[in-house]
Amino acid sequence: MGTTNVAIAFIFLAILSFTPNVESQVVHHPLDSLTPLELKQVQTLVKTSHQNVTFQYVGLDEPYKPKVLSWLLSKKQNKKSSIIPRRAFIVARVNFESHEILIDLSNKLILSDKIYRGTGYPMLNAEEQALASELPHKYPPFVESIAKRKLKLSEVLCEAFTIGWYGEKKTKRVVQVMCYYVDGTINFYMKPIEGIMATVDLDLMKIVGYHDRQMIPVAKGDGVEYVESKQGHLHDNHLKGMTILQQDGPSFTLDGNNVRWANWDFHLGFDMRVGPVISLASIFDHDKNKYRSVLYKGYVSELFVPYQDLSEEWWFRTFLDAGEFGFGICAVPLQPSRDCPKNAKYFDGYYTSREGTPVKISNVFCVFERYSGDVMWRHTEAALPGDDIVEARPDVTLVVRMVSTVANYDYIIDWEFKQNGGIKVTVSLSGILAVKGSKYTHQDQIKEEIYGTLVAENTIAVRHNHFLTFHLDLDIDGSANSLTKTHLKTVRVANGTCPRRSYWTAVHETAKTESDAKMTFNSGDIEVIVVNPNKRTNMGHHVGYRLVPGPVAAPLLLGDDYEQIRGAFSNYHVWATPYNRSEKWAGGDFVDQAPGDNTLAAWTMRNLDIVNKDIVVWHTLGVHHVPVQEDYPIMPTLSGSFELKPSNFFDYNPVLKVKPLKSVDWVNCSAKSP
Amino acid sequence: MGTTNVAIAFIFLAILSFTPNVESQVVHHPLDSLTPLELKQVQTLVKTSHQNVTFQYVGLDEPYKPKVLSWLLSKKQNKKSSIIPRRAFIVARVNFESHEILIDLSNKLILSDKIYRGTGYPMLNAEEQALASELPHKYPPFVESIAKRKLKLSEVLCEAFTIGWYGEKKTKRVVQVMCYYVDGTINFYMKPIEGIMATVDLDLMKIVGYHDRQMIPVAKGDGVEYVESKQGHLHDNHLKGMTILQQDGPSFTLDGNNVRWANWDFHLGFDMRVGPVISLASIFDHDKNKYRSVLYKGYVSELFVPYQDLSEEWWFRTFLDAGEFGFGICAVPLQPSRDCPKNAKYFDGYYTSREGTPVKISNVFCVFERYSGDVMWRHTEAALPGDDIVEARPDVTLVVRMVSTVANYDYIIDWEFKQNGGIKVTVSLSGILAVKGSKYTHQDQIKEEIYGTLVAENTIAVRHNHFLTFHLDLDIDGSANSLTKTHLKTVRVANGTCPRRSYWTAVHETAKTESDAKMTFNSGDIEVIVVNPNKRTNMGHHVGYRLVPGPVAAPLLLGDDYEQIRGAFSNYHVWATPYNRSEKWAGGDFVDQAPGDNTLAAWTMRNLDIVNKDIVVWHTLGVHHVPVQEDYPIMPTLSGSFELKPSNFFDYNPVLKVKPLKSVDWVNCSAKSP
Repeated sequence: MGTTNVAIAFIFLAILSFTPNVESQVVHHPLDSLTPLELKQVQTLVKTSHQNVTFQYVGLDEPYKPKVLSWLLSKKQNKKSSIIPRRAFIVARVNFESHEILIDLSNKLILSDKIYRGTGYPMLNAEEQALASELPHKYPPFVESIAKRKLKLSEVLCEAFTIGWYGEKKTKRVVQVMCYYVDGTINFYMKPIEGIMATVDLDLMKIVGYHDRQMIPVAKGDGVEYVESKQGHLHDNHLKGMTILQQDGPSFTLDGNNVRWANWDFHLGFDMRVGPVISLASIFDHDKNKYRSVLYKGYVSELFVPYQDLSEEWWFRTFLDAGEFGFGICAVPLQPSRDCPKNAKYFDGYYTSREGTPVKISNVFCVFERYSGDVMWRHTEAALPGDDIVEARPDVTLVVRMVSTVANYDYIIDWEFKQNGGIKVTVSLSGILAVKGSKYTHQDQIKEEIYGTLVAENTIAVRHNHFLTFHLDLDIDGSANSLTKTHLKTVRVANGTCPRRSYWTAVHETAKTESDAKMTFNSGDIEVIVVNPNKRTNMGHHVGYRLVPGPVAAPLLLGDDYEQIRGAFSNYHVWATPYNRSEKWAGGDFVDQAPGDNTLAAWTMRNLDIVNKDIVVWHTLGVHHVPVQEDYPIMPTLSGSFELKPSNFFDYNPVLKVKPLKSVDWVNCSAKSP
Repeated sequence: MGTTNVAIAFIFLAILSFTPNVESQVVHHPLDSLTPLELKQVQTLVKTSHQNVTFQYVGLDEPYKPKVLSWLLSKKQNKKSSIIPRRAFIVARVNFESHEILIDLSNKLILSDKIYRGTGYPMLNAEEQALASELPHKYPPFVESIAKRKLKLSEVLCEAFTIGWYGEKKTKRVVQVMCYYVDGTINFYMKPIEGIMATVDLDLMKIVGYHDRQMIPVAKGDGVEYVESKQGHLHDNHLKGMTILQQDGPSFTLDGNNVRWANWDFHLGFDMRVGPVISLASIFDHDKNKYRSVLYKGYVSELFVPYQDLSEEWWFRTFLDAGEFGFGICAVPLQPSRDCPKNAKYFDGYYTSREGTPVKISNVFCVFERYSGDVMWRHTEAALPGDDIVEARPDVTLVVRMVSTVANYDYIIDWEFKQNGGIKVTVSLSGILAVKGSKYTHQDQIKEEIYGTLVAENTIAVRHNHFLTFHLDLDIDGSANSLTKTHLKTVRVANGTCPRRSYWTAVHETAKTESDAKMTFNSGDIEVIVVNPNKRTNMGHHVGYRLVPGPVAAPLLLGDDYEQIRGAFSNYHVWATPYNRSEKWAGGDFVDQAPGDNTLAAWTMRNLDIVNKDIVVWHTLGVHHVPVQEDYPIMPTLSGSFELKPSNFFDYNPVLKVKPLKSVDWVNCSAKSP
């Protein structure tokens, strides 16, 4: 992302002032993301206070939860709600130091400006990565390395890699810059130039270390193109045109960034660090005739992507994608009819550039209703005399989608709201694998550990993981909640009491402290349910929501290994902490090169009480990826998911009495050319 | 299913003679299910040979695999293919004995007729269950029991339950008949009459045992209705009309029961025991310009549904749904636009009644293309100068669906074919839970083990499992295959060789024997891949398909418990056996009351060699179900799945070069009233 584009984007914005859907300059809701105007205010205030400042993170300073809840209550009661002051939280670099700045936007005041003296560095901004990546081209030893390889310098493209932390006592804010050979292809990731590595100090913005260790052939790049127009012959699977048609428009309504659909109401925000933030999700209980709270806030708090290659230029590649690169900064404009179906509506998002200028990401979110042909519930009753009875309800859900392309990799993240009360989160991985150049051209030549799969000539796709730890501040019918574990336990039957020798039962246990809540899902014999111990169903069960995992992956690295200490938030599939406004990011606030002293794993060492408290649940979704040739040169989507499901939250099936989807038969349609 | 309906169905059939899509009387393919004409032939031949015969199972006798493969080869080469004799396999009851009868349909000959002397009994037919269920009404002690409870006899409806096996040395072909109180509701399952149980001998068709143990209040049944017209006030979620539109029709073509869609070609059969049978699934390799075999045959071979209630009328409820009730017999006609989307096409299916008469199940399968708004692959490339490049491909798949309603429970089974080579199988559970009458009306009253969840007054939904074991005869690019396990293993790094202390690697192991293949998926650190050790990719990898499990559940019952011995096929998530034409059903052929002496677990004790052989993989998909109030009075769909995915089967991403889905914008549509 060059600064030129940034400037153009902002001029464009200044003219239009808001997008079709969302009046981005107007604050409707205390949880609205900072508007371009507010971001501009931040820029002005910070720049007035500091010369030579670079912006690393700018976001809404989370308003105090009780204030938000009381604002919401007033709104529900149609009372005039008290205004919640708008505040911005900024992380900036000034003179080799990280600053944490708090700004009162309403009064245009800097409330505090603290130099951060702890470990680690802030998120990298896009521009400093771009600048660092351009340095090698003017660095004579690098020019020589490229010449030695008989490559064209103009066709070399470099990228900056964060370096993790491996026990260093003192660190500098550096990245490793490594390069690819473009030479006519868009898929340069498949043509790494191995053996060369330039160390760039981001604060000095200069190369402070360099090595050229070995020459490895650069893959020829046959068959790496993925752009449609660059394919010679296209394969035809003879698919006829197909659309999702909502002739009467979508069923959801927007009030600013607040989405109301079917029985759901929630707020959608964008954050440059974590991407989509779902807030105040509540579900309408038709019987109680009111919205009941489910999720105060949910987002990807951190990612951990450790590669498993020990060679010189690879071993440190153990990324924390959110805290290092910004899951939000890396969000890309969604392509209508490609990334989202035709019936989708789009939202824009804004982040700040290195200079503090607002940058617009058009179509950063899409929202659409999904009807995939699935059934919400059904039964055929043939046992009664007379006509057979069949009742079946098509399932329609609402999806909120963002795509974050962290360099080579594309993360598609879906928050799906179901009428039955479920919230399903799906993370789909696509994009380009990280591959390593290699001398090998066939499996038979390989007699050593290559840390991956030979996917093409001279191309090894390196084994790795993706762990995403979600911050799930569940407020099940109110904020005071407990986490219960239901153990499914085998019981041996006493001899002679029953012809059976065993059965299994459900043993409920309330997690008393943070330690109790740490859990790994394996064989499926534990159910995790967040309950409100103060509210009960008509039958007397504590109302709750269950966290239902998808297929799980547990970390395979040693717990005392440096990168696993930094990524320790992935050690468990479930954690719970008492709500703490400052615990937003599971890997810590300043994660670049941090020694993992401020992670979720570190916080929970205090082992606080979590019974009947406002608790936050953290869930880790993980993928082990052993690449296969099918992942080359671009990866078919691979998905993981989890679901939050009502579990004795409602007195009965909440979609029992819901009007079925209208069966509409659209006829006489004509095709409009795209 | 009453006999009246059966007769009507057949008359209707005789007039129309075939369904719109499939010429059901004409055999196109050696794997076509028996046609009504063939079923009629079977009836005539068996009835000529035996008086007083009842039909328990009639199906296609699987043709010898080499013959089918050579038939297929001839067809591919457009040569005249040799005719494969059509044979039927019949299980019948004659004079208290089970017969296995083999019929040559081409020559109208009984080839063999053997009395089965082994353990267990055949599948129950629908009519004998209905007859058994009607017996109590004329049985004076039962009439008295109902009177004693002050219930109206005319409002009582009974059902037959198989009784399992619990160590009995001698057995009779009996069922337990238990009853419900209808009294105006369609959802009588929610109003069980507890304490009463009539034992019916199916061969004698009379009550041979009876008890009335205790009186438990019958639930009032408030709020149990699920039929739309019986709801008083419907809740409105304000969903606007929504359709999947394929104005130019579907993209798949049918040749009899052979389906060709996108890059897939497969045969679809119906079997009264197992339901849908996918055969000869092969995928077109655009580069090799030929179809390559993937799955010779795939189907649900058995189900195991053990309830976890030890009380008198409940402990034996540990059903093997396919072998006892017929997963195919229980299939129900799919409702257009409700069970399947509007763009679906339907197939009919046939089974035989107790008397051997063909019974048609209209719309037993639907086939439709799914576009749920998901992405097949994507990447945004912003690092190169000039315009940002975005390539994203919408994902369209093909779904084959059947719904089997085994009394109260509805299983929705989907075979989904993906253009990327994946075959995803999803089992969705809905319908009515099995509940037990109870004196309790509130959780606070309960101080004992109730084996379930109090979901409504006097209503306990009993904890249970569903295990479905799939027969997956993979033929990866040919029949000779091996099963490999890839273990993801942590490696401790030798001190000082690298700043890291650990990494993980992939260790490949070929399962040598049946014992080696037995496997449980837990923490996701094993990958199971079926490879063809005789075929390699361009890079030298053995071509393969991976079995990717969904969330897993392992049995919780003791291994030496009777029901778990019968359901022992659920002991592992993965098994592999050398192909054996007689090993079709994982729970054995005659499972009713069988002692589990002929299950997959028993077969694999011989520990045969499975390297580079025609192997069958068996995969168990399981669900632990601890009911919640939301499951009352009808259950929102709960899903499990697994996927077969190409794993170094193709040299590169098989959907890289595929033409994107045409973006069609349908306009000027008008709504046709339904």
